[in-house]
Amino acid sequence: MTTFHDRPVFPRGFRCASRNVGLKPSAKDLTLFVSEVDAAAAAVFTRNHFPGAPVTLGRETIRGGRLRAIIANSKVSNVATGARGLENARRMAAAAAAELGTTSDRVLVSSTGVIGVQLPVAKIEAGVRGMTADLQDDPLVGAEGIMTTDTYAKALSVAVGDATITWVAKGSGMIEPNMATMLAYIFTDAAFDAPALDRMLRAAVSDSFNMLSVDTDTSTSDTCALLANGLAGKVDEAEFLEALVAGCKRMTEMMGRDGEGAEHLLRVTVRGALDDGEARRVAKSVLNSPLVKTMVHGADPNVGRLLMAVGKCFECTIRPGSTDAWINGFQVVRGGERLDFDDERVRTALRNEVVDIEVALGVGQAGAVAYGCDLTKGYVEENASYYSS
Amino acid sequence: MTTFHDRPVFPRGFRCASRNVGLKPSAKDLTLFVSEVDAAAAAVFTRNHFPGAPVTLGRETIRGGRLRAIIANSKVSNVATGARGLENARRMAAAAAAELGTTSDRVLVSSTGVIGVQLPVAKIEAGVRGMTADLQDDPLVGAEGIMTTDTYAKALSVAVGDATITWVAKGSGMIEPNMATMLAYIFTDAAFDAPALDRMLRAAVSDSFNMLSVDTDTSTSDTCALLANGLAGKVDEAEFLEALVAGCKRMTEMMGRDGEGAEHLLRVTVRGALDDGEARRVAKSVLNSPLVKTMVHGADPNVGRLLMAVGKCFECTIRPGSTDAWINGFQVVRGGERLDFDDERVRTALRNEVVDIEVALGVGQAGAVAYGCDLTKGYVEENASYYSS
Repeated sequence: MTTFHDRPVFPRGFRCASRNVGLKPSAKDLTLFVSEVDAAAAAVFTRNHFPGAPVTLGRETIRGGRLRAIIANSKVSNVATGARGLENARRMAAAAAAELGTTSDRVLVSSTGVIGVQLPVAKIEAGVRGMTADLQDDPLVGAEGIMTTDTYAKALSVAVGDATITWVAKGSGMIEPNMATMLAYIFTDAAFDAPALDRMLRAAVSDSFNMLSVDTDTSTSDTCALLANGLAGKVDEAEFLEALVAGCKRMTEMMGRDGEGAEHLLRVTVRGALDDGEARRVAKSVLNSPLVKTMVHGADPNVGRLLMAVGKCFECTIRPGSTDAWINGFQVVRGGERLDFDDERVRTALRNEVVDIEVALGVGQAGAVAYGCDLTKGYVEENASYYSS
Repeated sequence: MTTFHDRPVFPRGFRCASRNVGLKPSAKDLTLFVSEVDAAAAAVFTRNHFPGAPVTLGRETIRGGRLRAIIANSKVSNVATGARGLENARRMAAAAAAELGTTSDRVLVSSTGVIGVQLPVAKIEAGVRGMTADLQDDPLVGAEGIMTTDTYAKALSVAVGDATITWVAKGSGMIEPNMATMLAYIFTDAAFDAPALDRMLRAAVSDSFNMLSVDTDTSTSDTCALLANGLAGKVDEAEFLEALVAGCKRMTEMMGRDGEGAEHLLRVTVRGALDDGEARRVAKSVLNSPLVKTMVHGADPNVGRLLMAVGKCFECTIRPGSTDAWINGFQVVRGGERLDFDDERVRTALRNEVVDIEVALGVGQAGAVAYGCDLTKGYVEENASYYSS
C-alpha cells in the first residue's frame, strides 16, 4: 500500500512559483516549476490531431530527455493558432530560460484554456521576469496557476526509499485523455535515466490517466511529464514504479471527482473479459454512458442501463447469460437479468460520494478500471458559456 | 424533392388503435397497427448485446417475411427479463393474433420503456381484447401509444405514384441506433416482396436512423419495420426508394429535434473525407461531443471545440492544415485555424432552432451527415429520475 503525505511537498531541488500576469482578471495564470539541476525527463502528449503549439514544441523538447523547468499558463491554450502560435510557444520557453539562466531546449511549455485564441505572449514575457525570486517549496502554489475549471489545486506526494515523488495536475473538462492526460507533472529526486522514466511513465499512465473520462472529449493540450533530478540517488525500480502507478491512480480519482459539475467519483471495474482491450472498452462504455451518469447523479436505481451500456460494445465478446453487476458491493444484475432488489438499498448506495460499479462478464480473465464522474446540470451550465464567461 | 402530406394518413388497408391498459397511470400505453391483408415485411433491430425479448422474438417472426399486425407497448421494455420475458412477448403476440383472427407468426411485438422490469402481460392481454372495434385511420393515434419521453406523437406520409408511404415512430433518449433505430414503423400499400423491402430498408436506415444520436447510448429495443400490403399495386422502385430515404431522414430530424431536453436540431455534415467510414466517424464525433453540444445549447462561439472533436478521431486521416468549418453557412475555421470573426454573428447563427455544422476535411471525396441535438439541463433532469418517476 502506498501512503501519501498529508500535505504535498517537493522532492529535493524542485521549487515553483505562480502569478497573475493578466490573462485572467485576478486569479493566478502562470506557473513555473524549476529543478536546481537538469533533470532526466519523459513525457506523453495528446493523440488529438489538432495538438496545441506547446504540444508540438514539447514533442521536440522532450527528445533531448533533459528538463530544467516547466512553464505553464492557464486561460488560453494556444491551440489552432497556426505558425504564430508555435512562435509564441517558443517565445514562452525562451522567456523562462532567460529568467532561469538556462536554454530553451531545457524548458517544457504548456498552455491550457480556450482553443483558437492567440496567446498574449507579451504579458507572459513581462510576467515571468523576476519570478525566480518567488520560487518556494509548496507544490500547491504551482498547481494554482494552471487551474481552469478545477475547484481546487491538486498535488500529491509519496516517499520511495530516500526519494520523494510529487504530482501536480489540473483536470476538470474535455477529459478523455487516451494516451496521455490533461496537464500532469510528476517530480522526483530519484535517479533514473530518460528511457527508464519513459517506460515507467507509459506503464503508469496506461491504467490511470488513460482510463479517465469526464466527458469523452479529448483535449488538444494533454501533457504528462515526469522529471527526475537524481538528488536523492538511486532507489529500487519496482518500488518506485509501484508508487508511481498508485499516485497516478490517486490523481486520476481526484480529477474524476473534480470533473466539471461532478458530485460523485464514478469507478467502473470490469472483470472476466476476453482480453485487456475488451475489458477497457466495456469499462469506458459504462463510465461514459450519459444514462448511467445521470442515473448516478439522480441516485435512481435504473440498473438496466448498466446492461445497455455493456451491450452496446458491439465488437466485444459479451454473454448475456453470464453477466453480473454490483453497485458499491450490492448485486443488482445476475445472469443478464435485473435482480428483484429493494430499490431503497440501491438508492442509498448511489448516494455515496464514491460510486463503484462492478461488472463481471464471465467470458475470460481480463479486467480494467475506468474513472470518471456523474453528469449534472452544473456540467451543462459551465460548458454552455465557457468561451463567453 | 419529396413533398410530405400536411397531415399523415395511412396507405390503403392499414389502420391502428391505441389505449391505456394500466401500464401508465392514464396516458396511452398500448398500440395496435393492422393491415387488412397480410403484408410483405422486413425489419432491422438493435445490435445491442442485450436485446429485449420482443427483439429476440421479432428476429424469429420477421424470417417469415409476412406481417398482419404490430402490437407495441410503452412504459416497460421487457429487456433483461430472461425466459419469462420471452414467454411474455409470445403471449403478447398471441393475444393480438387472437383479437385479429390471425396467427402469432404474423404479429411483430415491440416494447419500450424501463429496462429490467417484468412486463405486466396480463394487463396487455386483457387490454387488447376488443381493440379491433377501435381501429381507425389516423396514424398519430398509433404514435401516441408508443411515446415515452417524446414531447409529441410522430408520423409522416408521402405519395409515390398511386401508393402511399407512412412512418410512425418514437424517439427521445437512449438513442444512437447503430444498425437499427428506436421504434419506427413504415407502412405502404405499394407492392414489393420481402427481399426487396429488406434491401431498401437497410439502404434507407444507413444514412438516416443510423446517423442519429441523442446521447450515444444504444437502446436494447431498437426496431425499424417496413410493411407493404400491395393494395396499391406496383410502383417505380427508384422513386419509392427515394421517397423512403427522404422520409427516414425527415423522421430522423424529428427525433433529433425532440431528443430528451433538446432545444436545437443539430446537423453535422462532413465533406472531403478519405472514405465513407471516416466521414461517418468524424460526423458522429462532432455530433456527440458534449462540449460541442453545450456550445450549441449556450450559443457560445467556442468553435475551437469543433477542431477538438474532429481531432479526437485518432484513426481517421485528418490534415489540420486543410480543415475548414462553417456554422449555418458562416465560416469559422480555415486551414485548421480559428478565423478572427465577429462573435456576435456566430452567436446569432447558434440561436437558430436548426444548427448546421459543416466540416470540410480536404482529404478525399467522401461525405456524411449526422443528426442529433444539444445537451441541456433538461436531459440531465429527465434522466436522473427516469426509473423513479
